[in-house]
Amino acid sequence: MPELRVELGTRSYPIYIAADLLSQGELLRRHVRGNQVFIVSNETVAPLYLDTVQAHFKDYSVSTLCLPDGEAYKDLSHLNRIFDQLLSDKHNRSTTLIALGGGVVGDMTGFAAACYQRGVDFVQLPTTLLAQVDSSVGGKTAVNHALGKNMVGAFYQPRCVIADTATLTTLPEREFAAGLAEVIKYGIIADAEFFYWLEANMPALVAREQAALAHTILRSCAVKAATVAADEREQGQRALLNLGHTFGHAIETCMEYQNVLHGEAVAMGTVLAADLACRMGALGGAEKQRITALLQAAGLPTVVPPQLDLKRIRAIMQVDKKVLDGRLRLVLPTALGQAIVTEDFDAQLLQQTLDTAFA
Amino acid sequence: MPELRVELGTRSYPIYIAADLLSQGELLRRHVRGNQVFIVSNETVAPLYLDTVQAHFKDYSVSTLCLPDGEAYKDLSHLNRIFDQLLSDKHNRSTTLIALGGGVVGDMTGFAAACYQRGVDFVQLPTTLLAQVDSSVGGKTAVNHALGKNMVGAFYQPRCVIADTATLTTLPEREFAAGLAEVIKYGIIADAEFFYWLEANMPALVAREQAALAHTILRSCAVKAATVAADEREQGQRALLNLGHTFGHAIETCMEYQNVLHGEAVAMGTVLAADLACRMGALGGAEKQRITALLQAAGLPTVVPPQLDLKRIRAIMQVDKKVLDGRLRLVLPTALGQAIVTEDFDAQLLQQTLDTAFA
Repeated sequence: MPELRVELGTRSYPIYIAADLLSQGELLRRHVRGNQVFIVSNETVAPLYLDTVQAHFKDYSVSTLCLPDGEAYKDLSHLNRIFDQLLSDKHNRSTTLIALGGGVVGDMTGFAAACYQRGVDFVQLPTTLLAQVDSSVGGKTAVNHALGKNMVGAFYQPRCVIADTATLTTLPEREFAAGLAEVIKYGIIADAEFFYWLEANMPALVAREQAALAHTILRSCAVKAATVAADEREQGQRALLNLGHTFGHAIETCMEYQNVLHGEAVAMGTVLAADLACRMGALGGAEKQRITALLQAAGLPTVVPPQLDLKRIRAIMQVDKKVLDGRLRLVLPTALGQAIVTEDFDAQLLQQTLDTAFA
Repeated sequence: MPELRVELGTRSYPIYIAADLLSQGELLRRHVRGNQVFIVSNETVAPLYLDTVQAHFKDYSVSTLCLPDGEAYKDLSHLNRIFDQLLSDKHNRSTTLIALGGGVVGDMTGFAAACYQRGVDFVQLPTTLLAQVDSSVGGKTAVNHALGKNMVGAFYQPRCVIADTATLTTLPEREFAAGLAEVIKYGIIADAEFFYWLEANMPALVAREQAALAHTILRSCAVKAATVAADEREQGQRALLNLGHTFGHAIETCMEYQNVLHGEAVAMGTVLAADLACRMGALGGAEKQRITALLQAAGLPTVVPPQLDLKRIRAIMQVDKKVLDGRLRLVLPTALGQAIVTEDFDAQLLQQTLDTAFA
């Protein structure tokens, strides 16, 4: 089966990618060190896969927790429900937390593992495209705060990531498309060949043909793993992965995480970044058009919802994590397969981009 | 001025110990990298020292937050007040959190720094004996949970620790004594000479003579720093620092953190640990007596409050962090200046220790 490694010294770990991996108990148990496991899932994913996963731990002490589904619940109070049950069920320092679900479940479970008794093991079983190609890899964990997304969290690496591609066949269309926003991002920032491949194969991918899926996840994870290995704590290159995210996070926060998926916000944000890059003369108009067209072919929104308040968007962007010492930093595409992180852009051009988008 | 270093590779940092260090702005500013600082204190300490510290940052963007004083407020909801204000005041990734106060302020501020935007700088300005000799050094940060003490936290090292010994002169007697519980602990687990010194000099120490104070803090921090450097994440030797803490945490949790100081609980717990060690034949009766006598000379309680429920104490001890794979681990003194971490003790003897203590 295709296997990648995220190379981080003593914290290195494998990523397994193949169909039906959730049925492979031995693979999963190999990455559990103690005799306690705590499986966190959500009300959508649990009915589909929780029994399968739980069945692998007959001789273990097992707890399960089913959270409500959605970014709106990724907060400290729901995080505390994980701690409540870990303690009620007497989980100790050698327990393993298992995240079974999408990005929200993975982010919360990972952060809970980072904090519970100052750090216990965890394993990622991502069941959405977004989680398989992005959030489960790289150790970024967090919860949201009313005043900003992912503002409270930790860099904390899992023991392994097991991506069962068969879980993607039941994924709702909108959520599948949301994952494609991150896939396209990898092409834009680091891998022109992959971008061209996506342009040619988007119909097969949208039809969820297994060969197209497997190639997409492997290629995406390869870019992500290499970027994280080079810069785990985002002091440089890793920031490129935030293409579209500063704009995107502002859109999500402004919509209070309702009626917009993370990937949809990233898609809109990517178009805004491309637009600004274009106004700056850093990116050609044809490239901007190809980026927009590929996002559209993936079924993603490329225009911001009309009801959003431009003033609030600007205020939220000022507290984004990408703001360094009061200066806004943005990731801008400079070609297909290439991007930069910069604080050096004309505020008036940014104003034009926002004015046009939020007209 | 006396200066120690906690040697942790790229995360090494200095501990400065002397009178009136809070007045030395240059020393403090040297450890602040950005142009934003966020000072967290409590309602007892802030009126005494906050102006002095804040005055060092005239050209910085400064926020301050004053928390209520006490272990009872060391929880997720008060932690969230730090995040609320960090975000409202637009602190970014290059901000520095400054903990000005005792162990509770240090633990919460450190944990907030560990989590805010997945990690920002922080500096410890401990103003209690407990914080100067113990909690400010070593990077253990946490908040309490209703079901257990320090159950949610992180290992996260400060940029420096500045211990102004002059702050100890205004410390209430009971709180000063509580700090001595940890001081005596260092003698018991690692430094027989220091234990003997404490036996001879306890009157001078209780009278807060500056020379006695300085020697005590330096010697305590040296033991702590060496132990942390050898085992940052408590996978072995560092656990020795938990002498009296498993019993102590159970007592504190059972009393809901009311009417008992951490050091007082540790003092009672240390006597229980010595009692069990004695019943096991690991520690002589005379040594147990000397330990108890030194704690009493420091003004510490050595007998548990009569109202505590033995059954609850036992239940709480089962979820203590020192429980590994369902087995209770305890730190037991085996001589003056020596202790062991063990899971290997007779449950009946533990029962006798508890039955006698909670009669």
